[in-house]
Amino acid sequence: MKLTFRRYDLRLRHTFTIARGSSDIDPVIVIEVEHDGIVGLGESAPSGRYGESVDTVEKFLRSFDLSMFTDPFQLESILAAVDGHAEGNPSAKAAIDLALHDWIGKRLGVPLYKYWGLDPSATPVTSFTIGIDTPEMVEKKVREAEAYPLLKIKLGGENDREIMKAIRRATKKKIRVDANEGWTAKETALERVKWLEQEGVEFVEQPMPAKDLAGTAWLRERSPLPLIADENCVRLTDIPKLQGVFDGINIKLMKCTGLREAFSMIRTARACGLKTMMGCMIESSIAITAGAHLSPLLDYADLDGNILITNDPYDGVRVENGRLVLTDRPGIGVVPRA
Amino acid sequence: MKLTFRRYDLRLRHTFTIARGSSDIDPVIVIEVEHDGIVGLGESAPSGRYGESVDTVEKFLRSFDLSMFTDPFQLESILAAVDGHAEGNPSAKAAIDLALHDWIGKRLGVPLYKYWGLDPSATPVTSFTIGIDTPEMVEKKVREAEAYPLLKIKLGGENDREIMKAIRRATKKKIRVDANEGWTAKETALERVKWLEQEGVEFVEQPMPAKDLAGTAWLRERSPLPLIADENCVRLTDIPKLQGVFDGINIKLMKCTGLREAFSMIRTARACGLKTMMGCMIESSIAITAGAHLSPLLDYADLDGNILITNDPYDGVRVENGRLVLTDRPGIGVVPRA
Repeated sequence: MKLTFRRYDLRLRHTFTIARGSSDIDPVIVIEVEHDGIVGLGESAPSGRYGESVDTVEKFLRSFDLSMFTDPFQLESILAAVDGHAEGNPSAKAAIDLALHDWIGKRLGVPLYKYWGLDPSATPVTSFTIGIDTPEMVEKKVREAEAYPLLKIKLGGENDREIMKAIRRATKKKIRVDANEGWTAKETALERVKWLEQEGVEFVEQPMPAKDLAGTAWLRERSPLPLIADENCVRLTDIPKLQGVFDGINIKLMKCTGLREAFSMIRTARACGLKTMMGCMIESSIAITAGAHLSPLLDYADLDGNILITNDPYDGVRVENGRLVLTDRPGIGVVPRA
Repeated sequence: MKLTFRRYDLRLRHTFTIARGSSDIDPVIVIEVEHDGIVGLGESAPSGRYGESVDTVEKFLRSFDLSMFTDPFQLESILAAVDGHAEGNPSAKAAIDLALHDWIGKRLGVPLYKYWGLDPSATPVTSFTIGIDTPEMVEKKVREAEAYPLLKIKLGGENDREIMKAIRRATKKKIRVDANEGWTAKETALERVKWLEQEGVEFVEQPMPAKDLAGTAWLRERSPLPLIADENCVRLTDIPKLQGVFDGINIKLMKCTGLREAFSMIRTARACGLKTMMGCMIESSIAITAGAHLSPLLDYADLDGNILITNDPYDGVRVENGRLVLTDRPGIGVVPRA
């Protein structure tokens, strides 16, 4: 098996601001795993929140010797070796996981949803994210998002009320809120959550800092809206301790090391009585399409990373009336844009 | 998709006695799912402990209309419909799950271990079960089990010490003990567990009645041996509540409705810090081989149901020096005995 990779700079449609910072360009790493005449495609979209950058991803991929394995079908052993190679590096690990799944799907001649036994007509509607901005820009972005019936907005700062007012001036659509750990005091979080319920919000993601599980449990007892864990739910083993603290989890391929762990996270979350959502980073159609193949299993999808960029190098999953529409091509099933 | 089934009476090598009762013949139901020129094989081995008999299995299979589905690949939707068709009936549901997996493996041309990304060289040693009997017969059975390095014995009654004495007269092999809920008082259970540790026992399965979780948690705090849940762990959703009560779980296809749920149970148990074991009923090589394909993921295997019978209609997984040896044939990969 031969692994090659290249950096690719995704250009954002709008400067993207969340509680932690802003960016115009998001670099990702596109990888290829070649074996026996078949090429599997993968992608790493590193996030500083999880200690990664394109440099750490490149370092990880350079130092891991995939050529010691001779059969891409041995996902369990290979991915255990990848995971054990170094702590952290979740998106670098995800890139290999994606490429191996793509390879297997191509070898078997089936798209990943079929490989996993899923019904492609059962995909959910994906939300479309509106980044933090001036009230004027937020209103403009909401109008641009006309095609998407379900919005996600990033709150968690001082001007939450202004942003929401701007959104509600522009639309009555159902809204999901991501606070990205922005409300540090539990009383503030409760006040915001109660207010958001009045504003027609469906749920709130990660209202409080990940380190404050006790505060979040306090909030959940009083919250009129479901709370979804994002920064608090990185990998499979985080899930059991979220029972009674959150109502659901946001799974991201780039946090959890890839598709194989994501599938297990969906099952384990259900067993723990938690709803499942899949989110994403700013990603090309490679990673978004990979995640979308799992989406028939989800309660909620937020797979819009590829819609927020202007230079997506691949075609894959599409969005029609807000709903994810999977490709029937084998593996992840993306093809280079014409 | 066309489903047909037939009853088959498995003849036991020895009258089989556990804490709940005895038997000489164990009837199972062999099923076939035919679609697009491929036949998937499955098996149901009903247990009265879970409210089933060959009659209830036949009734379930007659009343479920599999012909409403047109694609065996749609495991998720089909198995949800099967599970929702009636409460209980886990082994009837497992038969359909097995047949669909066999069909998919045959269609894709890969054995199930490969379909799941597993390493066939990572299979564990299986234990070989010695049923409750007179001390003389126990000693005879232990000698007959010479080829198996790891024994499992059924205790949980008044003559536990006599049985163990007979075993230890015949062998020094590592032993696993299954009490099948036999010790109703927690003090008795603790006394037996402490004694068994002295006797070179590896772990104890289901020491106390399933309804006494508090007693089992009390026992675990004091037990020198790991405790494995059997009757307490039927399906996926049972797992999270076993944290802190048991050290591991015994998954059986005939309790949990089949391979798809079993795979998720293995992942969820790990996430909950529990060891995983796969056990079985008295089953032919169809169901034993199906379970064995998952065994590279297990900590412990007790897949000997097909060894305990004299008229196994199929050839599949083999046991060499105690270790499970998988077949490379597509699907479950069993073939009729010559």
